[in-house]
Amino acid sequence: MADTTVYRASTTAPVNIAVIKYWGKRDPSLNLPTNSSLSVTLSQRSLRTLTTASCSAQYPSQDELTLNGKPQEIQSSKRTLACLSNLRSLRKSLEDADSSLPQLSALPLRIVSENNFPTAAGLASSAAGFAALVRAVADLYQLPDSPRDLSRIARQGSGSACRSLMGGYVAWRAGSLADGSDSLAEEVAPQSHWPEMRAIVLVVSAEKKDVPSTEGMQTTVATSSLFATRASSTVPERMTSIETAIKNRDFPEFAEITMRDSNGFHATCLDSWPPIFYMNDVSRAAVRLVHDINRAVGRTVAAYTFDAGPNAVIYYLEKDSDLVAGTVKAILGSTAGGWDGPFYEPLKDTTAPGVPLDNVDPRVIGTLKDGVSRVILTGVGEGPVSVNEHLVNETGEIIYH
Amino acid sequence: MADTTVYRASTTAPVNIAVIKYWGKRDPSLNLPTNSSLSVTLSQRSLRTLTTASCSAQYPSQDELTLNGKPQEIQSSKRTLACLSNLRSLRKSLEDADSSLPQLSALPLRIVSENNFPTAAGLASSAAGFAALVRAVADLYQLPDSPRDLSRIARQGSGSACRSLMGGYVAWRAGSLADGSDSLAEEVAPQSHWPEMRAIVLVVSAEKKDVPSTEGMQTTVATSSLFATRASSTVPERMTSIETAIKNRDFPEFAEITMRDSNGFHATCLDSWPPIFYMNDVSRAAVRLVHDINRAVGRTVAAYTFDAGPNAVIYYLEKDSDLVAGTVKAILGSTAGGWDGPFYEPLKDTTAPGVPLDNVDPRVIGTLKDGVSRVILTGVGEGPVSVNEHLVNETGEIIYH
Repeated sequence: MADTTVYRASTTAPVNIAVIKYWGKRDPSLNLPTNSSLSVTLSQRSLRTLTTASCSAQYPSQDELTLNGKPQEIQSSKRTLACLSNLRSLRKSLEDADSSLPQLSALPLRIVSENNFPTAAGLASSAAGFAALVRAVADLYQLPDSPRDLSRIARQGSGSACRSLMGGYVAWRAGSLADGSDSLAEEVAPQSHWPEMRAIVLVVSAEKKDVPSTEGMQTTVATSSLFATRASSTVPERMTSIETAIKNRDFPEFAEITMRDSNGFHATCLDSWPPIFYMNDVSRAAVRLVHDINRAVGRTVAAYTFDAGPNAVIYYLEKDSDLVAGTVKAILGSTAGGWDGPFYEPLKDTTAPGVPLDNVDPRVIGTLKDGVSRVILTGVGEGPVSVNEHLVNETGEIIYH
Repeated sequence: MADTTVYRASTTAPVNIAVIKYWGKRDPSLNLPTNSSLSVTLSQRSLRTLTTASCSAQYPSQDELTLNGKPQEIQSSKRTLACLSNLRSLRKSLEDADSSLPQLSALPLRIVSENNFPTAAGLASSAAGFAALVRAVADLYQLPDSPRDLSRIARQGSGSACRSLMGGYVAWRAGSLADGSDSLAEEVAPQSHWPEMRAIVLVVSAEKKDVPSTEGMQTTVATSSLFATRASSTVPERMTSIETAIKNRDFPEFAEITMRDSNGFHATCLDSWPPIFYMNDVSRAAVRLVHDINRAVGRTVAAYTFDAGPNAVIYYLEKDSDLVAGTVKAILGSTAGGWDGPFYEPLKDTTAPGVPLDNVDPRVIGTLKDGVSRVILTGVGEGPVSVNEHLVNETGEIIYH
């Protein structure tokens, strides 16, 4: 009679939000980027993916993946297959070298994953998802590979996923080798180096975005006359400068580079043919708000950044919570949800705006009140964490929530 | 007793809308641009400035300028003073060479100007205004200088004004000399070469723009990391291509270059620090509409372009009036004013949209209906025209309307 043991490992993984943007692939199938990028890993106390990887001889022969309660067509996702195939090979090598190990690489996988936030809302769910998948299967297989090594695999699932395998401040080195073996993530500084970094996400719209990022970035690379300058010259200079800013905990420098890189990325989208727009009037109102706050305070206390969608992410330091998040709360506290949660404490008793609202253009206030449905308060956080909460029970059944 | 003759000359001058944008000065005081540009002169049947230049010994000793009924502080406008001083010098040379000429250069000027459209609404009123001023004073002084020569003077008033001294399709050559003597306008093709060009302006907002163009372009030149590529490489290539397209009357090519250059210009604005936004959600809806129309028709029949403001200008050929303006009319005919006028004839009996509206994203239709207050129907037109309608009467008094 066959062994019916269900082997399991579970992990949570974080979202990351880039401050130097990834946009453009030099090799679409290997997910090799045209330029390096850098992100802040966000706390899993706010946003996280929980993934259980399991394998068992009692499972059907084909690997299975369930996301947020829905079975996925795993065979049609080349990216998922590439990740699993890489991880299985690593396990196989261990088994070949040590015959006492159970032959897990030969067993079908059942992977179950849940986000605690809406998918495809511009919140980098695919980054957290692939990081969790790779980390969970690597744990299931007890692979000795470092997060840096695993980032090479996660990258093939979703480029930015490679940066979610580490906490703190993470660079994705573009690399130059054709096989992508030097295109991987590196920790620039751990969370503990600069733990005061905070972020407030202004959720502008949960509509699916018009142009998916993979398609959008190929359009930009192929058609924007300005893109080559960004990839070959602007971004490399910014990578150097922002790493120095992070090392020196220099928020004003970090902030200016972050804002300029976001603007430059969206500029190359607009310069694409046909043009790609991710920011809308609400996004632009968030840009104005941040500039107005910084002007009123007289120093740079806030930095906006926008991914491939209209949501604003505003970075600030904890000591400036009143000035930044307190001002946002004064504008949106009565209309947008999401103010509760783990990072709400410093704002709980804040009633007056940190920056008097007569410093902010009234049209900006009106546009934000009308257009922001929800905020998410968060901050810099740790990388993936092994957990004992499993989404598959001991007999191999999926636990639905 | 002194001679009290009032010498007068009046002209109308057109607006022009660039298809290759002027953005960036290499010399702000001489208005020398970083790159060449190209525009279509728009018909004065729709939009025009009427200017009377007069001079008389009976006038107060200081030159006077009245715009739309309001006296201007001429001494505080270096640009106006530069134009008048240049024109006076040219007149003085004629007088020095021929003593039979009246000494007009010694007489005070009274200049009166009226636009038939709102100033500072993003409709290039300063271009028409300075072109009319220079043409009217040159006519008053009976200068033999060609429009090309006069464009050098008008350029110092407002850069794009140099292109309004000619009709049809007009290039402003950036030039390379430090004194600006080779930075002037040239007719690429007269109106008669391609008279079928039409334009519909979607007037999005008559609010004053946030960042005036002179300030905006200095910010872009100083801070955008992508701007140098635009000025040194992208625009020169586009100038060559669009001149060929105009010579060949190749609308699809003309249209694609026009749209890409508008997008590229706004991309460098967004890449500036702090970022500059001229397009808003209504502008973006106009972009989508044009792409949707072209997709539905299966060929490029419409081209959008945006100056330093949210108004859309959509170029098309007369034969495609139904497809382009007819579709816009189906969307905006009941909510936006301005449909009457000299270019309305082909649309008068149009009831159905040229392109069925189910080809257009319903959000685009809603945004345009909410955000466009007025349309202006126009087309390619002639350069300045001498007229006998004067804004100063024979005794030197201003005629107010």
